[in-house]
Amino acid sequence: MASGQFLTPIFVFLLCLVSTTASPSVIQISRENTVSGYSNLRIDDDLYCESWRLSVETNDAGYWSTIPARCLQFVEDYMTGERYPYDSEFVARDSLAFAKTVEMAGDGRDSWIFDIDETLLSNLPYYEAHGFGSESFDESSFDSWVDLAEAPALPASLSLYKDLKQLGFTLFLLTGRGEYQRNVTEKNLLYAEFTGWERLILRGPSDQGKPAIVYKSEKRTELQDEGYRIHGSSGDQWSDLLGFAIARRSFKLPNPMYYIA
Amino acid sequence: MASGQFLTPIFVFLLCLVSTTASPSVIQISRENTVSGYSNLRIDDDLYCESWRLSVETNDAGYWSTIPARCLQFVEDYMTGERYPYDSEFVARDSLAFAKTVEMAGDGRDSWIFDIDETLLSNLPYYEAHGFGSESFDESSFDSWVDLAEAPALPASLSLYKDLKQLGFTLFLLTGRGEYQRNVTEKNLLYAEFTGWERLILRGPSDQGKPAIVYKSEKRTELQDEGYRIHGSSGDQWSDLLGFAIARRSFKLPNPMYYIA
Repeated sequence: MASGQFLTPIFVFLLCLVSTTASPSVIQISRENTVSGYSNLRIDDDLYCESWRLSVETNDAGYWSTIPARCLQFVEDYMTGERYPYDSEFVARDSLAFAKTVEMAGDGRDSWIFDIDETLLSNLPYYEAHGFGSESFDESSFDSWVDLAEAPALPASLSLYKDLKQLGFTLFLLTGRGEYQRNVTEKNLLYAEFTGWERLILRGPSDQGKPAIVYKSEKRTELQDEGYRIHGSSGDQWSDLLGFAIARRSFKLPNPMYYIA
Repeated sequence: MASGQFLTPIFVFLLCLVSTTASPSVIQISRENTVSGYSNLRIDDDLYCESWRLSVETNDAGYWSTIPARCLQFVEDYMTGERYPYDSEFVARDSLAFAKTVEMAGDGRDSWIFDIDETLLSNLPYYEAHGFGSESFDESSFDSWVDLAEAPALPASLSLYKDLKQLGFTLFLLTGRGEYQRNVTEKNLLYAEFTGWERLILRGPSDQGKPAIVYKSEKRTELQDEGYRIHGSSGDQWSDLLGFAIARRSFKLPNPMYYIA
């Protein structure tokens, strides 16, 4: 008992020194926690931007318009370095691993849906010239880029696309692009070596103004009503994947540059 | 024309040198691309583990049992360093930002659902002693830890919890723990300073054997049938958030240590 009492002040002193160590009931984040328990924002940009990106990729962030100003360099480094292509490739591997487990009926109804922009095709050359998502979206400028029909393939998605075709999946391309862009979209897909899709679905007059998540869910419902089994769906936006008539498995590709509801 | 022909071999030579630069139709990932287009796995562990973690957090990975052996140090660093608490805090901020936009009816039916493990309470002390998800799950060992009722609060979640209560939300705790753990779970929640929840929902006899995603969807349905509007849902597993009767907004907390279907 006596030695225990003697040790107490030392123990309290040590506890004060190691303030980043877990207290019994609450893990400490940092010394800069505010009273409310949230740490303040004077935090390293990289740590902030990594957390921001995760919140975007998990859909926790919800709606956002442009990337945080402090994350411009982070997003540029991510998109132009090794991480973006490798993250994309990881998703393609996950997708293929699942696809190989699907029992194919051989009736042509086993299908997979791909989004196009930042899923099959990469608009990185456009976004490199337009601030990697730090500038407000300029539809007319982007449409001019689309008209060039020179967006490169996302290589991992091209490999996946070919592998799924080889496995016998019927491939649907479901995009938020409009019917008026059908010709340039087909031209670009062929330029990027995508071939053999079953149907390219674009927004028609009756789809205008609908949120992407509704438009895409409605189109998936139509495919199901036609008898297609939608095993997988690949998209860089959660609005490609959620809603109703969702695929058995959804695969979220990375995209820290823009958000579509 | 002549100078163009002269330049061609130099151009080809330069193209070979800069093989990581985008070719016109396909972005190159690396020189180590295999014929199939997927790069091989002789890739830096950090890059691999970052991509693996993203695939886990977006649910692209689907079912997995233990973390990849090569990612043990990565997961340990992530969980015990700044990133895990800060990622968790970012999610709490996203959640609170949304919660503040909810128009409260004042009838006590505006509700929010929290998962418990790795959402309100952190089992990090347990996982630190058990390989950060690299060991197979040992239910009896984990239950002994639960019986101690000493799991600390995730600080950002505790702040969020208090803020939501202050805003007037009715709080439900929906956990995969069993009814036999009700007493120790309540004891632990109070120890970690959580108070004032409306109801603690645990797996009863009729819920045994159901996948978490089904069990939790059924319980949300019951709450909706009672007239509760489920505005938000917080969980570290996608099985906390997806299924049916889902919340208006779901918030995925990070957890690279284990997966629950």
